[in-house]
Amino acid sequence: MSFTISFVPEIRFGNDLHRSIGSAAAGLGGIKSAAIVMDGFLARSGLAETISASLAEYGIEARLFSDFTGEPKLAHVRAATDVVKGTDLVIGIGGGSALDIAKIAACCAASGEDAMHYALAANPLPKNPLKKIMVPTTAGTGSETSATNIFAGPEGKKLWIWGAETKADLVILDPVLTATLPANLTAWCGMDAFIHAFEAATNRNAHTGGKFYAHEALRLLTSSLETAVKEPDNLEARGKVLLGSCYAGIAIDNCGTAIAHNVSHAMAGLAPVHHGLATALGFEATIAWLIEADTADLNAAARACGVANAAAFPAFVTGLMDRTGITRALPSAFSAFDGQALAAEMKAPENQPMRRSTIRDVDDADIDHFAAILMSLPKAA
Amino acid sequence: MSFTISFVPEIRFGNDLHRSIGSAAAGLGGIKSAAIVMDGFLARSGLAETISASLAEYGIEARLFSDFTGEPKLAHVRAATDVVKGTDLVIGIGGGSALDIAKIAACCAASGEDAMHYALAANPLPKNPLKKIMVPTTAGTGSETSATNIFAGPEGKKLWIWGAETKADLVILDPVLTATLPANLTAWCGMDAFIHAFEAATNRNAHTGGKFYAHEALRLLTSSLETAVKEPDNLEARGKVLLGSCYAGIAIDNCGTAIAHNVSHAMAGLAPVHHGLATALGFEATIAWLIEADTADLNAAARACGVANAAAFPAFVTGLMDRTGITRALPSAFSAFDGQALAAEMKAPENQPMRRSTIRDVDDADIDHFAAILMSLPKAA
Repeated sequence: MSFTISFVPEIRFGNDLHRSIGSAAAGLGGIKSAAIVMDGFLARSGLAETISASLAEYGIEARLFSDFTGEPKLAHVRAATDVVKGTDLVIGIGGGSALDIAKIAACCAASGEDAMHYALAANPLPKNPLKKIMVPTTAGTGSETSATNIFAGPEGKKLWIWGAETKADLVILDPVLTATLPANLTAWCGMDAFIHAFEAATNRNAHTGGKFYAHEALRLLTSSLETAVKEPDNLEARGKVLLGSCYAGIAIDNCGTAIAHNVSHAMAGLAPVHHGLATALGFEATIAWLIEADTADLNAAARACGVANAAAFPAFVTGLMDRTGITRALPSAFSAFDGQALAAEMKAPENQPMRRSTIRDVDDADIDHFAAILMSLPKAA
Repeated sequence: MSFTISFVPEIRFGNDLHRSIGSAAAGLGGIKSAAIVMDGFLARSGLAETISASLAEYGIEARLFSDFTGEPKLAHVRAATDVVKGTDLVIGIGGGSALDIAKIAACCAASGEDAMHYALAANPLPKNPLKKIMVPTTAGTGSETSATNIFAGPEGKKLWIWGAETKADLVILDPVLTATLPANLTAWCGMDAFIHAFEAATNRNAHTGGKFYAHEALRLLTSSLETAVKEPDNLEARGKVLLGSCYAGIAIDNCGTAIAHNVSHAMAGLAPVHHGLATALGFEATIAWLIEADTADLNAAARACGVANAAAFPAFVTGLMDRTGITRALPSAFSAFDGQALAAEMKAPENQPMRRSTIRDVDDADIDHFAAILMSLPKAA
């Protein structure tokens, strides 16, 4: 047995911690100015002013980049880098998009290179990026603890920049910031985190170090996700989902994902769909097939969810998705595509790592089968 | 609920990893020279040559500091700093002493300041210490993942240097390096790690983040320590003890220790005694009293060891110490002291943090009682 657990940044957890972010920033040492990266919606909520005021208390001048919504594009990353340049610290606040933009901009601003210079590992990242504080406001992507960052390239294709240099120096988990997340997003993001943990704990790259984090994430999410969806102001449940998502991020940072993420990335290649929803639908469509492998890891992951064994796990997943109110339907834009179209995306080169890491061999007939199941789902009106 | 989990360095685990330390060092980037810190006994085993050869493969020039044995003294730290100066990387290999010397020297060599400048937090540590790789060869202190470093000051008094700047950049856990540890040291060091985990999970500073690591350490150590003592070449058991010790180090880095460590530090103030043995004896003498608090944390820690509840835990501890062959006896030098002498050390200012963190209030009568129990133990001939 051999394995590596990549470094885990300092993690601070607590209600309303975002109000004292100035103290956290000052604690990093030598910080005179900071760039806040958050989407326009969050910025308009007053959060940007709260953060800036906290920074000002410690004499830290703040700039704001908020000129983006939705999935990050190269243009966003470039514009963010321009704002970040000349500061000492990047504070990413939001969902995975804001965090990924912030993490990439912290590298590009330090080196003066364009994001495309680093895309798909074309060149090594700078050894001394700007300091980074990451503050997730959704609980799902785990971007706050991962080294993977996604954005759409000049032709709209999803690209990634990967490397420890993009990782946060400090993660702030503030359950209060997640309390306004609507029920459907809470469920979708939470299922994304749940599936991160399950896939990291059971795929071909699973190892002792990663499973340690993944199983704790499964325990935390299983015990809290339904409550967080049904009682949005329940900060204890919100906190468990947030911490579970963070640990799941550590798990995928070490062991990666598998077939459900092949499905969701393939779906995103066809039409816009929320990543958490797509992943949950992909997981439900493949889990009965997956657990036939009946490995020790699959059984251990099921038990971490309080389920007796792997065989009983698919019914548990369906129950969890029911209890968290996830409608099994695709956005209307998917009406334009059929199973063959999704299967082609699932077989595309960029989605093969997630196929190959799956604990069962995924042959083309399996993919055709899964794609047919998914594309037969109802489409939203 | 609020808590902070301090950063966890990258951890690589695997048999014979020490033979490829050159690759690990080169991976840190910009490393041209390295100083190896290991005690004279280890250095004479041929390990220094193996490490140097591996570094040479990557063009990294190696120096060796091995002029110490036993507990680190200021003179050792100063001599190590002189050797380390001018290199890019410090590699500490050995027990807690070697690791603590290496970690302090990496800071002093970077700043040019003497260790006394930093002792007892007199001054802030340098923000850019040398890079550090820590390779434990005993499985107990957890120094590879902690920010605490102990050495004896000019008057022989134990001093500490604490700070994230002293923490490793990379931890290498190689079970092979622990296979030659004699049975008594395996048991003593293993109990030290076990008690780190138990005290971190149950004291007044215990929190969700720390307990996560502590409980895993308890599971790993409970399942493997006896086997590691009885089957020295069982690398699976050795590996579990080593990983458990590492996680226990993370737990105390976050939550600290309690009464058993008050006892063992107090004992060290009287006469030389192995830290693991002293801690184990202190733990057994206090655990029946401690578990009367019957807190949720005490019960959870017991369950992590496979014990039904806290009430059943003292018998489990005694059984574990029996099965790992720990003789309940003190070194002969302790014949010169009585219970009052130990009680006075236990009440000394430098040992009060461990007293105060204990989940039960420790009054003076409790201390007198524990000290009497300990000093009534047989003394080695």
